[in-house]
Amino acid sequence: MKLVDLYKDINSYLDKEIELKGWIRNHRKQANFGFIDFSDGTCFKHLQIVYTNDLADFNNIQSLNYGSAIKVRGNLVKSEGSGQDYEIKALEITLEGDCSPEYPLQPKRHTREYLREIAYLRPRTNLFQAVFRVRSVAAHAIHTYFQDRNYLYVHTPLITTTDCEGSDQMFKITTFDMNNIPKVDGEVDYKKDLFGKKAYVTGTGQLHGEAFAMAFNNIYTFGPTFRTENSNTKTHANEFWMIEPEIAFCDLEGLMDIEEEMLKFVVQYVLDRCNDELEFLDQFVEKGLLEKLNKLVNSKFTRITHHEVIDILKKADIKWEFIPDYDSDIAKEHEKYITEYFNGPVFITDWPKDIKAWYMKLNSDNKTVAAVDLEVPGAGELMGGSQREEDYDKLINRCKELNVDTEPVDWFINLRKYGGCVHSGFGMGFERLLIYLTGVENIRDVIPFPRTPKSCDY
Amino acid sequence: MKLVDLYKDINSYLDKEIELKGWIRNHRKQANFGFIDFSDGTCFKHLQIVYTNDLADFNNIQSLNYGSAIKVRGNLVKSEGSGQDYEIKALEITLEGDCSPEYPLQPKRHTREYLREIAYLRPRTNLFQAVFRVRSVAAHAIHTYFQDRNYLYVHTPLITTTDCEGSDQMFKITTFDMNNIPKVDGEVDYKKDLFGKKAYVTGTGQLHGEAFAMAFNNIYTFGPTFRTENSNTKTHANEFWMIEPEIAFCDLEGLMDIEEEMLKFVVQYVLDRCNDELEFLDQFVEKGLLEKLNKLVNSKFTRITHHEVIDILKKADIKWEFIPDYDSDIAKEHEKYITEYFNGPVFITDWPKDIKAWYMKLNSDNKTVAAVDLEVPGAGELMGGSQREEDYDKLINRCKELNVDTEPVDWFINLRKYGGCVHSGFGMGFERLLIYLTGVENIRDVIPFPRTPKSCDY
Repeated sequence: MKLVDLYKDINSYLDKEIELKGWIRNHRKQANFGFIDFSDGTCFKHLQIVYTNDLADFNNIQSLNYGSAIKVRGNLVKSEGSGQDYEIKALEITLEGDCSPEYPLQPKRHTREYLREIAYLRPRTNLFQAVFRVRSVAAHAIHTYFQDRNYLYVHTPLITTTDCEGSDQMFKITTFDMNNIPKVDGEVDYKKDLFGKKAYVTGTGQLHGEAFAMAFNNIYTFGPTFRTENSNTKTHANEFWMIEPEIAFCDLEGLMDIEEEMLKFVVQYVLDRCNDELEFLDQFVEKGLLEKLNKLVNSKFTRITHHEVIDILKKADIKWEFIPDYDSDIAKEHEKYITEYFNGPVFITDWPKDIKAWYMKLNSDNKTVAAVDLEVPGAGELMGGSQREEDYDKLINRCKELNVDTEPVDWFINLRKYGGCVHSGFGMGFERLLIYLTGVENIRDVIPFPRTPKSCDY
Repeated sequence: MKLVDLYKDINSYLDKEIELKGWIRNHRKQANFGFIDFSDGTCFKHLQIVYTNDLADFNNIQSLNYGSAIKVRGNLVKSEGSGQDYEIKALEITLEGDCSPEYPLQPKRHTREYLREIAYLRPRTNLFQAVFRVRSVAAHAIHTYFQDRNYLYVHTPLITTTDCEGSDQMFKITTFDMNNIPKVDGEVDYKKDLFGKKAYVTGTGQLHGEAFAMAFNNIYTFGPTFRTENSNTKTHANEFWMIEPEIAFCDLEGLMDIEEEMLKFVVQYVLDRCNDELEFLDQFVEKGLLEKLNKLVNSKFTRITHHEVIDILKKADIKWEFIPDYDSDIAKEHEKYITEYFNGPVFITDWPKDIKAWYMKLNSDNKTVAAVDLEVPGAGELMGGSQREEDYDKLINRCKELNVDTEPVDWFINLRKYGGCVHSGFGMGFERLLIYLTGVENIRDVIPFPRTPKSCDY
């Protein structure tokens, strides 16, 4: 059986014989007996296996290496030792797969930097058992939230020939032999490439998502995304996952309702299912993590305009590194102050149009757009969204103002001519959510096999 | 309110006033009244709106274009007309977004080829409302099946520097200016690229999935996958989605149990939730679709070796185009015959080692590997899996035999040295499942925005 099932109702197995398969996470040997710290990976909890020299192959068992895969048959008993309530008194322990003594993951403290170097083994550590279980459960929380509310899950394409995000920010993708690229008149002859055009992998599914929202009303995407940023910070990776919901007949207020409800749902879902993992993370990674998460699900999210935020920042008795400015973005120090000021998450709305994207709805003041960023204590900007410009002429004007080449996105703009309506959407970087949920600071430690500049191993 | 909620308990809304927002899917006009075929995309069912010249803006309403977004306020009444049980008697109809008379999706029959050309509008048609709803529900069925059974969802990386699949089958990915690629000694200087190495987007998450199965016991991936095949068939696309579960302490028999249970679960899940969609597809796309799906969930899956299959094929009184051969793969005609022979799905196991992958477990006969293909009536090969070679030395030998360069996958092979155990996994192409579930024949029609050779629009 599996540990996850055993722990669901462990009392009912007391004094019964059970069989388990898993791995030796530690092995302490005494003259006439031994203790195996056993884990099968199905839950965060381990189980202690006790064996004695009553067993015929006692010597073989004592020689079992840390890290080995074993099969254990034994009786579940109340433990007399400290540190656990139950243990297995072994009747038989069989080696299923040996572990070399050169195992790079010896049972001692390792730095996270070292663990990144052995990314194929680090999921076996307590830290990454916790982090990647939370990742999996949080992913399902997101699917469950949207599916329960009848959103359509759309797999938007990753390969694209549209470079409206700016081709510098996108990976080029090709089937050419890179050493021998066909050229015509000195330029790459893309006609000979698989798609017959210059192609990229994309950084957003939003445009395609909007096309589906105009057919299915409310949709979401959840898939990998790529950025070429040559940036070695704790929060940047070149491959990460994004969630991008898009909702027809929904304005900015409605969008904030959804963002708030979704975030609380996901946090509560993880709180309900990952208690062991979160307690570990609370103890060893971010003190107060559980309190932070429990507070969030019960907090009231403030809604305030960018202009009002700047007012508050200017009145604050603080020497800012970056001077708050009505026409500019806010800095990290401002985000932090504002969430502390309101003692909870803050939706900041109605941003200066010049610092936001071309497809966002222009407000009647002609100066701001109906955009919203969600600032969360301890996470910074967690979601970014907007009401979309549904007026064809206004959107064309914005494209002209911002020098957006409309030709590759004419289909997207045409959605406004064919029964387009008020609609809104947002994006959430999944890893940013995970950093918040786990307290782990570095994006490299919430992605199974992270891709960052000069680092694409495994 | 939304149609999906209205139809959940429509009787309770009878003679009540409701408000709906959605689109005009058809508009029939008479002198003193009119009928609007209304859909809001939240469910497959439409609703008829009746309006009369009692309404003050009758003329405006009559001028509303097909395709427009509208808001309707009215009373739900029993319909006196044929074709529907209920309808809305409108009190007010407001235009939310006009639709140009040049709308490329006029209310008439369109070929699927034409609809592919307007991929951003086709989700509004009945066919694609059905197909993409099934796609979304089936995706959640898969997540639900695995999450309910405690599988860990792993986001394996798409960018890779490992070319063990054969670099010809993988897209290269780069940040270089393609017109000006830095070279050293006449060769591409990959040190200057973002990752400092030659990089690809991958066609499988299996290797990374195995690393996680050795930590979490049972895992699954579900994400996009890429192939460069220059193949214009009904079943090939260059971007598609795959599901790849991997299970520790699981042999080939256990794997087949999981495959069978999962497939039945997913089909039943879709049957339970997409009745309107499947009835439509049964009527207009594949006659007998519902019967086929209902039969599957109640069928017994046969388990038979490749050798036995060849025996049966050789004995069959059929003039094969491809002669059945104990050392070769089976052809489509054979697959069809075998599923008809057993009148249900068939697991074919123990394939000749020379036609299967290097990581599959070598059987004791030294001739076959513990691989399994699932053949499903009306779908062909739906899943492919195997027990993996857990013996380090045997795996190295197989790599040598098959000229697999082990250097880039040494970490994967080393999993055998560090507590590796019996384990198995399979892959299922999500679009192949959808073709089976919907009866739609062409992969281009089950992918929101398909990417195929010379075709990467939108």
